[in-house]
Amino acid sequence: GIGCERGTSRQLIESAIQQVCQAHQFAEGSIAGIATLDLKADEAGILKLCHDRQWPLQCFTAEQLRSVSVPTPSDIVAEEVGTPSVAEAAAILASQGHKLRASSDLSASLRVAKTIVRQAGQPGAVTVAIAEAEQEYTGRSGRLWLVGTGPGELAQITPAAQTAIGQADVVIGYTLYIELVSALLRPGQIIEALPITQERQRAERAIELAQWGLTVAVISSGDCGIYGMAGLVLEQLQQQEWDGKTPDVQVFPGISALQAAASRVGAPLMHDFCAISLSDLLTPWEVIEQRLTAAAQADFVTALYNPRSQTRTHQIETAQQIFLKYRNSNTPVAIVRSVYRPEEQITLTTLAQLLETPIDMLTTVIIGNRSTQIHANKMITPRGYLGFGA
Amino acid sequence: GIGCERGTSRQLIESAIQQVCQAHQFAEGSIAGIATLDLKADEAGILKLCHDRQWPLQCFTAEQLRSVSVPTPSDIVAEEVGTPSVAEAAAILASQGHKLRASSDLSASLRVAKTIVRQAGQPGAVTVAIAEAEQEYTGRSGRLWLVGTGPGELAQITPAAQTAIGQADVVIGYTLYIELVSALLRPGQIIEALPITQERQRAERAIELAQWGLTVAVISSGDCGIYGMAGLVLEQLQQQEWDGKTPDVQVFPGISALQAAASRVGAPLMHDFCAISLSDLLTPWEVIEQRLTAAAQADFVTALYNPRSQTRTHQIETAQQIFLKYRNSNTPVAIVRSVYRPEEQITLTTLAQLLETPIDMLTTVIIGNRSTQIHANKMITPRGYLGFGA
Repeated sequence: GIGCERGTSRQLIESAIQQVCQAHQFAEGSIAGIATLDLKADEAGILKLCHDRQWPLQCFTAEQLRSVSVPTPSDIVAEEVGTPSVAEAAAILASQGHKLRASSDLSASLRVAKTIVRQAGQPGAVTVAIAEAEQEYTGRSGRLWLVGTGPGELAQITPAAQTAIGQADVVIGYTLYIELVSALLRPGQIIEALPITQERQRAERAIELAQWGLTVAVISSGDCGIYGMAGLVLEQLQQQEWDGKTPDVQVFPGISALQAAASRVGAPLMHDFCAISLSDLLTPWEVIEQRLTAAAQADFVTALYNPRSQTRTHQIETAQQIFLKYRNSNTPVAIVRSVYRPEEQITLTTLAQLLETPIDMLTTVIIGNRSTQIHANKMITPRGYLGFGA
Repeated sequence: GIGCERGTSRQLIESAIQQVCQAHQFAEGSIAGIATLDLKADEAGILKLCHDRQWPLQCFTAEQLRSVSVPTPSDIVAEEVGTPSVAEAAAILASQGHKLRASSDLSASLRVAKTIVRQAGQPGAVTVAIAEAEQEYTGRSGRLWLVGTGPGELAQITPAAQTAIGQADVVIGYTLYIELVSALLRPGQIIEALPITQERQRAERAIELAQWGLTVAVISSGDCGIYGMAGLVLEQLQQQEWDGKTPDVQVFPGISALQAAASRVGAPLMHDFCAISLSDLLTPWEVIEQRLTAAAQADFVTALYNPRSQTRTHQIETAQQIFLKYRNSNTPVAIVRSVYRPEEQITLTTLAQLLETPIDMLTTVIIGNRSTQIHANKMITPRGYLGFGA
């Protein structure tokens, strides 16, 4: 934090900073930047010094500065510029980064209270205060890249997504998905692999690191925008009253589970289709049932996500019962597990026999519409519509 | 087409073929392969000759051969092996490739009727007939690669799809999509760019070339398996009683229009969603209306494909009216045109104001569910379900 009289020279400001650093045993290399009052945004000595030393200059309004309680307030300064502290308050505010704390805690970061420095024969005066930031200062605006990694085979990950994973400072994701993209990672990246259940923690951690100025890739299998991490991260940013810019957010779409499954069984999605997750952890089961009924009745080709877990077993049975009310029992059904991976399993069956094939959380189920047919082991939904009224 | 007495030497068969070719001024290099009766599949002279000259040997059953009417049938041969013609009938059948014609037309391909060749002092006898194939013989089993090229930016095309386009002998697609992937094409490829309306012709042409033995990439924008060329090609193969193997078919999924649009506006597809095409060219409008009603009522996030063309203008208006019956008028709506291209246009609006933004065939419309919100110019559908009963 710097305050100075109008017209103070670059040289005096620099030597004041050096003098205070030396006195308190701070290396000059640890200076992340200079903070001051916005009235000083055109102060030639400060601007020249910041330019020469490549220190970012952050300016606060008098209103912002006077909200900070400081150890050494000055009535004279308050009268002149509208805040009782410039150097101390600016140093404290600049050290906070994006963290919002109760204002009573703010001054905890102050390491050196204000020192006034003058030099014989030189006009002007400089006040210097030093606050310490909790997080390393990167001088960059953070970025959040929300990346879909598709079914898990590198050849099915878009080049845009691959580049994002390779360029990010940090890659965050569920352990298995991190392993699947390990060939794209480079030395020096921060890799944070978290268990599958800790989705909220992954989103929070990603936002925290991006606010620090890092470029953070959050990876999701399939398309991160379809039941994936993209929404979770954006939801949490929204709760933090995100301004839409800091951090910058970019979504990289990927091949979703329903597309990957469809591509391996033929062309089932050639007519109107829907995706329904059978997980009732966050959605009331009656909503899911209503959607299953609507999809069955209106003859959508239907992809079921999260069809069964170790504890949720009845949902797929109910889904089958609902569809059997409106669709022929020999309606083609594809059951695809671990698609595009070495252990891939594909079963083409019928609505009536759907439960005879093992189904778990790694499985996607695609139920055809009234026109869908099986030919030569391919599931084909005609482009034209033959099934109405059938 | 070759027939021979049991034990005829390789040398005699070869010189018989050479003699007949010379007599009728056919170059030996134009021989695509040898065809005969399945009883001759173990005839040492034929096998050795085919091996040495790298001629494929195709064997037909007596039943297949006797179905062909030939100029020079023989009762003696018929009595011996169950078909009145071996050389002529086999030549004719082999020259057909995958083309199925009325059997009366079959013999049109015969160029040289059967000639019997013997050699003084040599045991055995050879009959030779020559038929001409309409298509160049490639000696390969064809492949059909159905490739999704995503929204049109190379960085959004999967490496698997890019490799397929670069490796194919033939690339077939709508002119604009061919241009978008022109950087992936290589010299020597056959490129067939066809107008947007000729989808059926594109599929037929692709199948024809694949049956010739070529590797044919059929490209579709978005995901070829979602309202794309994959289904059209499979449908036509099915009509031709395709055996599932010849040609081999592989589907390469791509980033679909709804995913591309979603990724640019935030994360609207975080809960159950559906895709509905408003084109009633091949689907009765009452089916589409039923699906719109089901989607609106059951609170699916809804992507509308083909929302409006120059001649179809009322459909999007009806869709809006249907949704307004079940959703709040300020439900967020994204209107995305030419996504990921330089001319991309993104509008976030509401269900009530949806028609105030220009909409055409290059536009995808995404209607949020009851929980979808706009924050900082991003469309966010929460993962949890807040909207039921609201």
